[in-house]
Amino acid sequence: MEHRDYMKLALQLAEAVRGQTSPNPAVGCVLVKEGRIVGMGAHLRVGEAHAEVQALRMAGDAAKGATAYVTLEPCSHHGRTPPCADALIEHGIRTVVIAMLDPNPLVAGRGVTELTNAGIEVLTGICEAEAKRLNEVFIKFITTKKPFVTVKTAMTLDGKMATYAGSSRWITGEEARLEVHQMRHKHDAILVGVNTVLTDDPQLTTRLALGGQNPVRVIIDTTLRIRLDARVLTDKQAPTWIFTTERADSMKWERLEEMGIRVFSTGNNTKVDIERLLALLGEQQISSVLVEGGSQINSAFLHARAIDKVVSYVAPKLVAGQGAPTPFGGLGIEDMNDAISLADISFEKIGDDIKITGYPVWG
Amino acid sequence: MEHRDYMKLALQLAEAVRGQTSPNPAVGCVLVKEGRIVGMGAHLRVGEAHAEVQALRMAGDAAKGATAYVTLEPCSHHGRTPPCADALIEHGIRTVVIAMLDPNPLVAGRGVTELTNAGIEVLTGICEAEAKRLNEVFIKFITTKKPFVTVKTAMTLDGKMATYAGSSRWITGEEARLEVHQMRHKHDAILVGVNTVLTDDPQLTTRLALGGQNPVRVIIDTTLRIRLDARVLTDKQAPTWIFTTERADSMKWERLEEMGIRVFSTGNNTKVDIERLLALLGEQQISSVLVEGGSQINSAFLHARAIDKVVSYVAPKLVAGQGAPTPFGGLGIEDMNDAISLADISFEKIGDDIKITGYPVWG
Repeated sequence: MEHRDYMKLALQLAEAVRGQTSPNPAVGCVLVKEGRIVGMGAHLRVGEAHAEVQALRMAGDAAKGATAYVTLEPCSHHGRTPPCADALIEHGIRTVVIAMLDPNPLVAGRGVTELTNAGIEVLTGICEAEAKRLNEVFIKFITTKKPFVTVKTAMTLDGKMATYAGSSRWITGEEARLEVHQMRHKHDAILVGVNTVLTDDPQLTTRLALGGQNPVRVIIDTTLRIRLDARVLTDKQAPTWIFTTERADSMKWERLEEMGIRVFSTGNNTKVDIERLLALLGEQQISSVLVEGGSQINSAFLHARAIDKVVSYVAPKLVAGQGAPTPFGGLGIEDMNDAISLADISFEKIGDDIKITGYPVWG
Repeated sequence: MEHRDYMKLALQLAEAVRGQTSPNPAVGCVLVKEGRIVGMGAHLRVGEAHAEVQALRMAGDAAKGATAYVTLEPCSHHGRTPPCADALIEHGIRTVVIAMLDPNPLVAGRGVTELTNAGIEVLTGICEAEAKRLNEVFIKFITTKKPFVTVKTAMTLDGKMATYAGSSRWITGEEARLEVHQMRHKHDAILVGVNTVLTDDPQLTTRLALGGQNPVRVIIDTTLRIRLDARVLTDKQAPTWIFTTERADSMKWERLEEMGIRVFSTGNNTKVDIERLLALLGEQQISSVLVEGGSQINSAFLHARAIDKVVSYVAPKLVAGQGAPTPFGGLGIEDMNDAISLADISFEKIGDDIKITGYPVWG
């Protein structure tokens, strides 16, 4: 066994709880002594014990002299819970192996310093790339105060997200649609445009056999055209927040607020301001947004350069149609050489569909 | 070693020569005696020795008592060369293992019968699915007298084959573009619409470092709008055949024929009749066509249910644009439930792009 093997286990523990620790990062910890695992832990929920503390509890006296593998630099400050660096020192940990430093520039390196000052050997950068991917949401949020934006699309192999007549059920198969609910579970918010609400009257909830968390439902609605009997407004399954502009009708605005719906203004532009919307969501501690928009919403995010990740499901079918909508509409880019490239592409087969994931390079 | 192992080697030999044996099938043969390979062969070119004969020549006297692995049922009829079944019998082959029977219903099973009558043990159906895939072009051609049609498309991850302004160089990376030249090399004909010729003035030749075969260039041009100085008409790199209708200008028609260009009429419809075009190509011994069309040509083939295989390169980039062309245009299918599904999907990464291959199910 090497450091990487134990760190991978710690990363698996963190991955398992990804999405349920927001706005805290998902963190895993493994304690190893004399070639045996003596403790494992993960941070389960904001306000509860951190991964290191969970692992130390499991280890008990065996922690003394052990090596701790942690996916993120142990905290050295008093937050909602006491600092983990202190706990590692108190329990006599001999070596701490860290995948990545704290992405918060205000505290990065402090945990390492405190451990080193206490005579503990510290190794950093083990499985760092994997840890950064795991913490992509937390890193974005902590460094920009804006949520990490994932645009999820589904299209046919000829690039259509619906037929020319608007028929879109279903493009992808059952497995892919199930996975989308798992994605919803792992996001703080889901975002669509009002046209989707008007056309489909969707619930935008997480529907999984063993339950799941519902994201906050965010609707972009420039002039408050939403119907007051829309399911997202009446079903009480999850909070619904509407982002609009000063151009909206004030009577409708009041009526929505009376129904318990939060309505946010992004200013008096002709369209909802995407950057302002993301800043407002950040203020509300929303660290991740899953955009399940149509052509217009998706291209508005592209135009605002406000996409961190794209998850595209490609279904092996053809519908043709010059007028059929594609995942990104709007005016579009003129020269193919100016196309927005995606980096770190991965792809896998989900049922009969192909899932392609990548990260836009804004250059 | 099992029968499958030797058959896979025979399939590899056939795969290596796929595209250079048209209109004959690609066939491989391996001879095994007492656990050792004593002969290998492949049919290299129409009119030349068949795979079995090549392998028997390599084996010489060692063929006596050997087992022959053949990817396709040995022929029993006198064609351009003497029957292979006779050759296997004469050389004292003891067992013949066959991947698939001859797809020609007029002769299927005759080779097996002749071998069995001569006292040879015959096994069939070993690696049959792989052999049918290998021979997909030959099977289609021999059973329908029409060429196997592959539509090759390239699009961005948001479904565009060009930007709204028509910019399309380049969607895919170098590796994918190289592979397209390998596909051209393996096809008897390449087909585009006249708009592609007018816009891009392409060569439509096979450009590979170590050379390759140029397919016949087939242009669909309903009213003979092609420019007489188009490269496909003047460069003498490969034959160019134009498919048009009775509505075309007769002067232009004559002029083209004077230039040595063959012009075929598919009738007097307002569009070139795809089924008639394929029948005419079949009459000309074209067994495979690579369609590198735009939205309109591709959707015409889809509408005619005349696509056997789709090869789609998806590039990890976004250009957006409601008006940007997608791989299949036209009116399109109305209901997503009526979409044309593709079966036997496979996918692989080619450079930074993803290649998705499938076979339309016409139902």
